[in-house]
Amino acid sequence: MANKPSIPKGTRDFGPTEMAKRNYIFETIRSVYALYGYQQIETPAMETLQTLMGKYGEEGDRLLFKILNSGDYFKSITDQELTERNTLKLQTKLCEKGLRYDLTVPFARYVVMHRDELQLPFKRYQIQPVWRADRPQKGRYREFYQCDADVIGSESLLNEVELMQIIDTVFTRFGIRVVIKINNRKILTGIAETIGEADKIITITTAIDKLEKIGKEKVNEELAQNGLSNEAINRLQPIIELQGSNNQKLDTIASVLAESETGKKGVDETQFILHTLENTGLKNEIQLDLTLARGLNYYTGAIFEVKAIDTEIGSITGGGRYDNLTGIFGMPGISGVGISFGADRIYDVLNTLNLYPNDSVSGTQILFTNFGTDETRYIMPIIATLRQAGIRTELYPDASKMKKQMTYANAKQIPFVAIAGADEIKNGEITLKNMLTGEQTTLSPTLLLSTLQKTPI
Amino acid sequence: MANKPSIPKGTRDFGPTEMAKRNYIFETIRSVYALYGYQQIETPAMETLQTLMGKYGEEGDRLLFKILNSGDYFKSITDQELTERNTLKLQTKLCEKGLRYDLTVPFARYVVMHRDELQLPFKRYQIQPVWRADRPQKGRYREFYQCDADVIGSESLLNEVELMQIIDTVFTRFGIRVVIKINNRKILTGIAETIGEADKIITITTAIDKLEKIGKEKVNEELAQNGLSNEAINRLQPIIELQGSNNQKLDTIASVLAESETGKKGVDETQFILHTLENTGLKNEIQLDLTLARGLNYYTGAIFEVKAIDTEIGSITGGGRYDNLTGIFGMPGISGVGISFGADRIYDVLNTLNLYPNDSVSGTQILFTNFGTDETRYIMPIIATLRQAGIRTELYPDASKMKKQMTYANAKQIPFVAIAGADEIKNGEITLKNMLTGEQTTLSPTLLLSTLQKTPI
Repeated sequence: MANKPSIPKGTRDFGPTEMAKRNYIFETIRSVYALYGYQQIETPAMETLQTLMGKYGEEGDRLLFKILNSGDYFKSITDQELTERNTLKLQTKLCEKGLRYDLTVPFARYVVMHRDELQLPFKRYQIQPVWRADRPQKGRYREFYQCDADVIGSESLLNEVELMQIIDTVFTRFGIRVVIKINNRKILTGIAETIGEADKIITITTAIDKLEKIGKEKVNEELAQNGLSNEAINRLQPIIELQGSNNQKLDTIASVLAESETGKKGVDETQFILHTLENTGLKNEIQLDLTLARGLNYYTGAIFEVKAIDTEIGSITGGGRYDNLTGIFGMPGISGVGISFGADRIYDVLNTLNLYPNDSVSGTQILFTNFGTDETRYIMPIIATLRQAGIRTELYPDASKMKKQMTYANAKQIPFVAIAGADEIKNGEITLKNMLTGEQTTLSPTLLLSTLQKTPI
Repeated sequence: MANKPSIPKGTRDFGPTEMAKRNYIFETIRSVYALYGYQQIETPAMETLQTLMGKYGEEGDRLLFKILNSGDYFKSITDQELTERNTLKLQTKLCEKGLRYDLTVPFARYVVMHRDELQLPFKRYQIQPVWRADRPQKGRYREFYQCDADVIGSESLLNEVELMQIIDTVFTRFGIRVVIKINNRKILTGIAETIGEADKIITITTAIDKLEKIGKEKVNEELAQNGLSNEAINRLQPIIELQGSNNQKLDTIASVLAESETGKKGVDETQFILHTLENTGLKNEIQLDLTLARGLNYYTGAIFEVKAIDTEIGSITGGGRYDNLTGIFGMPGISGVGISFGADRIYDVLNTLNLYPNDSVSGTQILFTNFGTDETRYIMPIIATLRQAGIRTELYPDASKMKKQMTYANAKQIPFVAIAGADEIKNGEITLKNMLTGEQTTLSPTLLLSTLQKTPI
């Protein structure tokens, strides 16, 4: 009975301070999304396994949290199947629902189900938790939030431009200096074609994606191990070693890819995006990085990734263009482009760099101490007036010792404490204590309100 | 493959309009909780089954969504157990986690796990979805939000008083006229004692809880069926039939319960709460209702329930005092009192009574039409200025036909459309169309901004 309770590994409780910080992050992202006309949707935590399975590869299928059917969950399973213990096969008989693994597949499912109500282009954002049965480790959780924005039903590159502006605005508001890296899957395809290994595009992108982590030598080793000819690897080197400004890089790559239709298209798209962005006064650097591949193979055009400059933490935002999000649900031909902010990593960066604004915690502004029934009767109307004016006000509920009440105020970091004893009641006043300076003043309820209104929270 | 996708029964997608309305509800509740010094926490969607099982009765255990263990989930089950198919027994071997069923048990678990960090009294609020494998029906879902506030570690009745004020403030802000019903479990106990059926307290409260639904005759029948003597039922009638003002009712009940210590305590508590509230200018009626019992047997003091006056929908908020929330997790003696707003029902009431404020949807304020690259280059800096000033602005991403772009603006209910063709570019101006009145004016970018800033959203 009285077992010490615990929570499932890889999950977390969020206390008041953490919640205030997290709300600040979500609210900042949300307001920038809205500034660009994105609209919020939410989808259920549970999706049918039919929707989820087969969308994230074998690994993903394994990492889906599956929900046991209600009632007789052995119903459609024979004794023989049970004792054969093929747990992989049986799980879809035991379970027909799972927890959402990301926000992209539920969004695709949403678009297909609501196709008749949607006005295209549809710009949606979604901020919800997702669940993965990954092995928990530092910075990796089994329940975490994603903050996605996607626009579907428009192939215009202005969408890519605006997403870069959104990224720039969000990190500017956070005060986090970042580099926004951009590449294009068509350029990568062009490279694979040009070096004569068009069918090895996935091998190539997977390997060069690791360049920053494992270095050039190891990347080349991996390419060789995966069957790339020495000649192809040699021809890849100028791409891997490419240096210079975005425009210089684009010029080089344009000449290298002159024979690849797809490659040229990728160069043109990137040129348009970078050129248009020059006009918009980005606060952060945007950097063409040909080694950026992002594991996900569903990207077909631009791909993005964001790195914080002042702390080592890996990618804190990413995204890209995909051409066939909804095809798997029987609705082909819908192109889309989207980004996803990594809330947990942004949380860590803001902590590391101590960038939370002071007012991100909207805690109690003033605590009224409690000396008993008579005093309470005197201060309750005053408290009502303060709350009416929007001042977050607490009355300590018990007539406890003064020390205990002050400890409470300090623990909750309440900046002001109001005291009303016999003297104050007689004079129709309140004694106000500034908990930071220790300063005490006695004043009328009206002055009390105006004092609090003038004090920045 | 191309199966028509669906979502699990009893769950819902929320589109942009529904989200805006729901956010308005959550934001209103959240801001009032903060006004009274309550702090937000969040707990994981998944809890261990050890935490969840046995807390909601047999029915509740059955309605918990359970999550299949990862890997070889048959590991600890023998072949014999499998073919015996005792699915009820086996579920705790197949699953060690479940989805949270309410916010109260996770909160109790939170308090016990974080006891050393918490400053008591601890006032927390929590707004998160819960999941129940109930049979879905109109107004009842398998995934729905709860909006709870509780204060623990204080027995002061001022907490009850403030929770009544919170309810009153929230519904006043919504514009929903309500009756706040209050009762006290101790009064109900006193009644059971006084009519000589102290051990039948649960039978009695369960029956009289249904008074409004099934009428007096049926309640008396049920009491008789459950073994109450005719004499006891007769002595119960004055309570059931009680009329008059709160004070009149309290006077009657005080004299009826003169011999019951517990009953008198309940009367005193109720008197204090009602008396103190007289001072606070409640906008809604508070009504002592001795037939209010609320099924939940863990309440030990005050109990509350809120009904909307202008629409029939049952209880839209409820709560009460409990004496031993955390005892089940090995931490006895913590008293608490809390309320829970029913967001889904409040959503329906606001819809029925058409009470959503116009600005609850913070959608796009102005759409710039797209005539192609040159025009886009001209308007992008203007758009940047508007967004800098906080105006939610969209650029139509494709140079589609004007009609299509206008249809988009109408579908998204965007109040203004900006047009810039060759003439406007030549003169450095923008043509602004008011989509409601059809009125068109041509003006400078500076005037455009000030016009939008002056227009209520």
